[in-house]
Amino acid sequence: MSNLSQDIISNSGVRIFQDKQLYSFNLDTILLYNFAKPAKKGAVVDLCSGNGAIGITLTHKTKATIYLVELQKELSDLAQISINENNLNAQVKLINDDLKNVQNYISHDTIDSIVCNPPYFAVEDNSKMKDNPVLAIARHEIKTDLSKVLYASKVLLKENSHLFMVYRPERLSELFKNMLDNRLQPKRVRFVRSTKNKDANLVLIDAIKTVKSASLKVEPDLVIYQDGEFTKEAKSIIEG
Amino acid sequence: MSNLSQDIISNSGVRIFQDKQLYSFNLDTILLYNFAKPAKKGAVVDLCSGNGAIGITLTHKTKATIYLVELQKELSDLAQISINENNLNAQVKLINDDLKNVQNYISHDTIDSIVCNPPYFAVEDNSKMKDNPVLAIARHEIKTDLSKVLYASKVLLKENSHLFMVYRPERLSELFKNMLDNRLQPKRVRFVRSTKNKDANLVLIDAIKTVKSASLKVEPDLVIYQDGEFTKEAKSIIEG
Repeated sequence: MSNLSQDIISNSGVRIFQDKQLYSFNLDTILLYNFAKPAKKGAVVDLCSGNGAIGITLTHKTKATIYLVELQKELSDLAQISINENNLNAQVKLINDDLKNVQNYISHDTIDSIVCNPPYFAVEDNSKMKDNPVLAIARHEIKTDLSKVLYASKVLLKENSHLFMVYRPERLSELFKNMLDNRLQPKRVRFVRSTKNKDANLVLIDAIKTVKSASLKVEPDLVIYQDGEFTKEAKSIIEG
Repeated sequence: MSNLSQDIISNSGVRIFQDKQLYSFNLDTILLYNFAKPAKKGAVVDLCSGNGAIGITLTHKTKATIYLVELQKELSDLAQISINENNLNAQVKLINDDLKNVQNYISHDTIDSIVCNPPYFAVEDNSKMKDNPVLAIARHEIKTDLSKVLYASKVLLKENSHLFMVYRPERLSELFKNMLDNRLQPKRVRFVRSTKNKDANLVLIDAIKTVKSASLKVEPDLVIYQDGEFTKEAKSIIEG
């Protein structure tokens, strides 16, 4: 493990083993971890879990069994190291497969909460494509896409249970349409901006699986910087 | 005209005749007027124009012919008074009919911009229903609804032309889904909040008619009050 760093999200105490050559967690991960309100018990899924940073750290917030679903072997192997090193084998289960096969491992309508930091970019949008293939798959819709992620979420979630997601505001209308098409109703969104006078660069979404319509709350923005320093709220989220 | 007041949006100089017993323009109207960037010439439509406050005031921003489409006779009659009193009969045309019949007056694919402040509330949501029937129809989806408004917008607009709308954030996912279903792509949204720490209570949307997908910009919030007074931006919008 000589090439690996150990990082901790928001002072949770859970050590995440990372390989900077592959993919490391970033601000998106920290913000989604903090935004999510997982069920306190039962079963939680981290879809597109990568190196497991969010799912494994959620053991700090919940007693639920946590399933990590990740396609890429290199990232799953890293997640397994973090599970082992934190002695979390009893609580965290790894599924190293395509999310389209998730029902081979987990029954439909059995999951109490899902967290998901999916690939953000359409394949056509290759302006930001990286040479590193692991990173490319994590960021671009090469192996999965938004509608597959939301379909899997709908299948797994119990009725009236929540999906917590981080996404790009540029694709918000597509996200909302796809959510409604999968009867996931956005209940709460929060936009994230570098500074209060900039366009939003991230959006956090809390959606519920329901056949009913729902009323959306657009919560106060999360602003990261003011006068060149972290805002009080950003500091408290990042440092925990 | 003894029961009528005269009001002016944002120092435009255009006098709007209003009957407080029926329906008067409010902050939503002023914000949409300011958010809208109508084509400088050609033809513009104000859908659900009410007493004409936005459409008639847009003569201050554009030389285009402006069509007001309003179902309610009482409000159309008021709009005609404002058109007459401002000597705008050459530029502003009144269509007092249901927007589902709009193609009887205007050909499809001929409009350069649309502004629309539609009824916000579903009929089932009668918690805010008013006794005043004119106001009830203006605020609730009694005579029209979101999908009809967006369908009419799609039919009227030229390709790559803009729809400017004000709506309630509570229904944003439904709005976006309906827009995409009518191949109107949200390009720019701006949330409006009473204060920066409150949930948004309005959203301004700039959508474009196109078969392509589009990238959405979530612009900086418009905050109305700070420390009990108008913010600088709100003051400049409201006072013109």
